[in-house]
Amino acid sequence: MWQQVEIELKPYSRGFHLITEEIEQAIINFPRVRCGLLHVFIKHSSASLTINENADPTVRDDMERHFNQFIPENAPYYRHTYEGPDDMPAHIKASTLGSSVTIPLKNGKINLGLWQGIYLGEHRDYGGSRTIVITINGE
Amino acid sequence: MWQQVEIELKPYSRGFHLITEEIEQAIINFPRVRCGLLHVFIKHSSASLTINENADPTVRDDMERHFNQFIPENAPYYRHTYEGPDDMPAHIKASTLGSSVTIPLKNGKINLGLWQGIYLGEHRDYGGSRTIVITINGE
Amino acid sequence: MWQQVEIELKPYSRGFHLITEEIEQAIINFPRVRCGLLHVFIKHSSASLTINENADPTVRDDMERHFNQFIPENAPYYRHTYEGPDDMPAHIKASTLGSSVTIPLKNGKINLGLWQGIYLGEHRDYGGSRTIVITINGE
Repeated sequence: MWQQVEIELKPYSRGFHLITEEIEQAIINFPRVRCGLLHVFIKHSSASLTINENADPTVRDDMERHFNQFIPENAPYYRHTYEGPDDMPAHIKASTLGSSVTIPLKNGKINLGLWQGIYLGEHRDYGGSRTIVITINGE
Repeated sequence: MWQQVEIELKPYSRGFHLITEEIEQAIINFPRVRCGLLHVFIKHSSASLTINENADPTVRDDMERHFNQFIPENAPYYRHTYEGPDDMPAHIKASTLGSSVTIPLKNGKINLGLWQGIYLGEHRDYGGSRTIVITINGE
Repeated sequence: MWQQVEIELKPYSRGFHLITEEIEQAIINFPRVRCGLLHVFIKHSSASLTINENADPTVRDDMERHFNQFIPENAPYYRHTYEGPDDMPAHIKASTLGSSVTIPLKNGKINLGLWQGIYLGEHRDYGGSRTIVITINGE
């Protein structure tokens, strides 16, 4: 059984944001999957999806500060600069963190660990609304 | 055809460890899949799964030294520090390396390259036993 | 419905390369999938697959320069050095970027964003021809 839906996230500020509830809400009316997989894909090359700690907002802040340090703006070797200093680092962050997450489904639930949530990594200063595709397959 | 199993890995020390055989052992009694995919997911935000070289243990050691250098402990910008200096770097490593791997299945075998194995990245000093979910889908 | 094919890419020089068309060509005769997923896997531990910007070649060049800076050759802590200075960084890049990408399929098309393409990351100086496994599942 396949289900697929494309949704627009509300615009988020630059940084990392928990979007687990937005994903859950988007699939709430899908038929219940006893055993399967959830795939979430972001259709942009300057934002990312990843899984990390779901409780303490300082984790998301520290992630943002870390990646700004090690994937810096204005590196002297960047040539792709015409869209602004936040653009090329955003592309590198997107590939470092990834464009999709795949998570087990079990008895109708997204089977994340107790302390895991789905993060949007918004890597542009003004990225606007981002499109994601949610695909469910299972039985 | 779907198969899913949740297992506890034995506790591993901080660093990278080959767990291909533990995965193979966990699915040894599953029905044979001619064509499909294997998904392995770790239910923790301070450990990771990745695929890398399966022969020389110094690759795993060099990986550990590299990520300790570029995702350091005690960075001055960390705020999430109350669980110890190994905690926030562990979260960043988890997102950099990823929480799951997906690998082709072919004629009943995990179709890795000759030099590839599945790594657990244990990023805490004392992470204890980690839970992973193995999902197989195919025909 | 499952389809799987293993192909050899032509040899690429060290750096990042758009291979979306090679993937599309490899699956052109597969039955049309209305809703499903495409999985692409690279059977090597010194090359990677990732998704990024598909229009400006300087993005690929900047990616190469960035990862050479932050995953350097000849780091003093490397022990796995007998295959040359490009070898250990190649392994670290492979795990940082990933060995596979999973992308939604919709109405017979790979449902990438307008500005997204599939990149091969060739991390060796002379990596030669790389083997990838393409798996499609859907209905």
